[in-house]
Amino acid sequence: MTSTVEVDTLRPPRQEYLDRRARLTEYLSAQHLRAAVLFDAHRVMYYTGFAFYPTERPIAAIITREGQVTLFVPRLELEHAEQTSHVDEVQIYEEYPGKHHPMEQLADLLAAPPSAESVGADQDGYPWVYGYSGPTLSEVTGRSVVNIALKINHFMSVKSELELMLIRESMRWAHLGHALLQKYTGIGLSEVEVSQRAGQEATSAMMAALGSDHKANALGFFGDGVLATYRGQVGKQSSMPHITTSGARFASGDTLVTGATAPVWGYYSELERTMFIGEPSVEQASLFQHMLNLQDIAFANIRAGVTAASVDEHVRAYYQQEGLQAFWRHHTGHGLGSRNHEWPFLDVGCDVVLETGMVFSVEPGLSHPEYGGFRHSDTIVVTETGCRRLSYYPREIEALTIHTNH
Amino acid sequence: MTSTVEVDTLRPPRQEYLDRRARLTEYLSAQHLRAAVLFDAHRVMYYTGFAFYPTERPIAAIITREGQVTLFVPRLELEHAEQTSHVDEVQIYEEYPGKHHPMEQLADLLAAPPSAESVGADQDGYPWVYGYSGPTLSEVTGRSVVNIALKINHFMSVKSELELMLIRESMRWAHLGHALLQKYTGIGLSEVEVSQRAGQEATSAMMAALGSDHKANALGFFGDGVLATYRGQVGKQSSMPHITTSGARFASGDTLVTGATAPVWGYYSELERTMFIGEPSVEQASLFQHMLNLQDIAFANIRAGVTAASVDEHVRAYYQQEGLQAFWRHHTGHGLGSRNHEWPFLDVGCDVVLETGMVFSVEPGLSHPEYGGFRHSDTIVVTETGCRRLSYYPREIEALTIHTNH
Repeated sequence: MTSTVEVDTLRPPRQEYLDRRARLTEYLSAQHLRAAVLFDAHRVMYYTGFAFYPTERPIAAIITREGQVTLFVPRLELEHAEQTSHVDEVQIYEEYPGKHHPMEQLADLLAAPPSAESVGADQDGYPWVYGYSGPTLSEVTGRSVVNIALKINHFMSVKSELELMLIRESMRWAHLGHALLQKYTGIGLSEVEVSQRAGQEATSAMMAALGSDHKANALGFFGDGVLATYRGQVGKQSSMPHITTSGARFASGDTLVTGATAPVWGYYSELERTMFIGEPSVEQASLFQHMLNLQDIAFANIRAGVTAASVDEHVRAYYQQEGLQAFWRHHTGHGLGSRNHEWPFLDVGCDVVLETGMVFSVEPGLSHPEYGGFRHSDTIVVTETGCRRLSYYPREIEALTIHTNH
Repeated sequence: MTSTVEVDTLRPPRQEYLDRRARLTEYLSAQHLRAAVLFDAHRVMYYTGFAFYPTERPIAAIITREGQVTLFVPRLELEHAEQTSHVDEVQIYEEYPGKHHPMEQLADLLAAPPSAESVGADQDGYPWVYGYSGPTLSEVTGRSVVNIALKINHFMSVKSELELMLIRESMRWAHLGHALLQKYTGIGLSEVEVSQRAGQEATSAMMAALGSDHKANALGFFGDGVLATYRGQVGKQSSMPHITTSGARFASGDTLVTGATAPVWGYYSELERTMFIGEPSVEQASLFQHMLNLQDIAFANIRAGVTAASVDEHVRAYYQQEGLQAFWRHHTGHGLGSRNHEWPFLDVGCDVVLETGMVFSVEPGLSHPEYGGFRHSDTIVVTETGCRRLSYYPREIEALTIHTNH
């Protein structure tokens, strides 16, 4: 006899997609839009559950005002789309470029009268990806196309209970990856070896712990499993926040900046720490403390009802007040969830009002050409009265100093 | 006394970028375009040598008709851009979104008269990336913007001797990664564990062999070092060419499809093989042989002077002739080099004439719902009289059968 007890799973249920689509169709109705056409892979995934590699072959989700959902994919994705998505139908085109441009065939799906009605889209046509080119959506449909990308961004920015659970689950494995990264880092080793060792071990643990229900790449597009990395931020190079992996070797006195995350059914968390090899110098310790202060200012000023800009303004005031402006490089943080960076931004130019359930990185930093980069990134969720930190890795300098025998 | 003997390096020299820019500026002059504005990260890298993570913060290369090259970057990328690019100047904006939209500041760089002159661009403004939004280039400059993306694609499609050397070097390490992937694959193991083990070992070897000159992530944007993976193409699932990694475990009788590559100073190769766990069945062997035949037809029909479409037409004729149409999923191949997929495409809809030095994947495949996916991908370079295969991994079924004790 087969057990009929339902087994717990992290996989988002169909109802999650129905709820998301209900909010969207309500908006389409209010705006008198015939349908929404979404090209961005993360937006397609958000509304359909279909995770795929974006290539030169356009893929789109078409969601009508009445709630009918069509996935438009190349032939090679038919079975993949049918087996993994929550949609009413999957429509295919043969190939890109093909003898008939896919966009012409997409237009046929939007041909139903009345032709005077506008459609919403996240971009007026498929963007360049891997050498794609083609006509715009308005050209092929003859309809007026209203850009609804910001509205979609807004919908995606407020996380459901399920999404918060997946981000928390991601944090478990990011935390493990980071702990192993710290454990394996040592003088003379290469950042790449240490990062691969930590990532591999954490991924094996994650897969074993989550069981067969868990997809290693769980709806992530790039990379499989836990990522725990320095991304080139080793020693003086750490002063360049977006340097790429360099194969640098660790040396005594290095300032290090880390990054760890893990994909869980399409969701990510963000955990970054500043660490030192050997006892930090007075200068290193001072910049580290300023960085902690900057983060604390951000934490203290985040809550539902304030603007994103106001958080960054408070943080920026500290740089000014302490004479640290020369070491400023970027805003306080960014939204995140299914992408590593999402709208909105904790930035003086972003006047969005924070809402309960929005998730942000909090990562104001200091970059010093001699002493390196100083940045923790914590993932927080906005609450009525403040924010809750989802990353619980130690923040203190003692816990982030790698002791050596030198 | 310091040695003055020049040490060999794979790093592209400044002259390579000057040569590329000379071809572009000649084109700009002929088209009476004031400048080219390039937003795509790979195109920026191609003309400036600057490799970076594309985010919501726009980055652009501006190349005037006179050959003046400016990189436009956010403040956080200033030092990184200055230290790693070959340009005349780096101009910064503070942050995105910031109080002044970056595109307004980019417009200032294009303000020099005569204002009636058009500019070329690979897209009319920065595309959505990570939640970016903003005005178009034509809106902020008031200039007419000519889309030159296809022309840039064409320039990038014909590889220089240096580029071919880097793709060949990439093939060395893809080959090693693939050999290890095959060696470590066994019944009961997870695709993720095997892929990570092979990638890690091959990457360590690559870094040690190439020495300190080599950057592990050498101008690749995603991932570090050698990638050797199944990407979910295990057993029946292998019939879905773009399935994502699933954590599948290998079983006797599985058809497997692989993929291996390695980043070398921004260039990639492509190596994919169909393999079997245990002796293939009659049906598996038959589909495998058809797949080899399809590839051989493509190889035999590629040479400078023929169209990309004609190659795919010859291949498609075989599917028809052999009654294999039901198992067709995609065109014969795609360009590659600094991206995994590049324009042009070996596709019935692509009437581009092949030129000496163009590099393509050749990968016609068969997908059978029961027996799995059958696809080798080889990287070739077009020559006057035919093509030269840069991937030299064995193609034969005997070499690709993983023997078991079952």
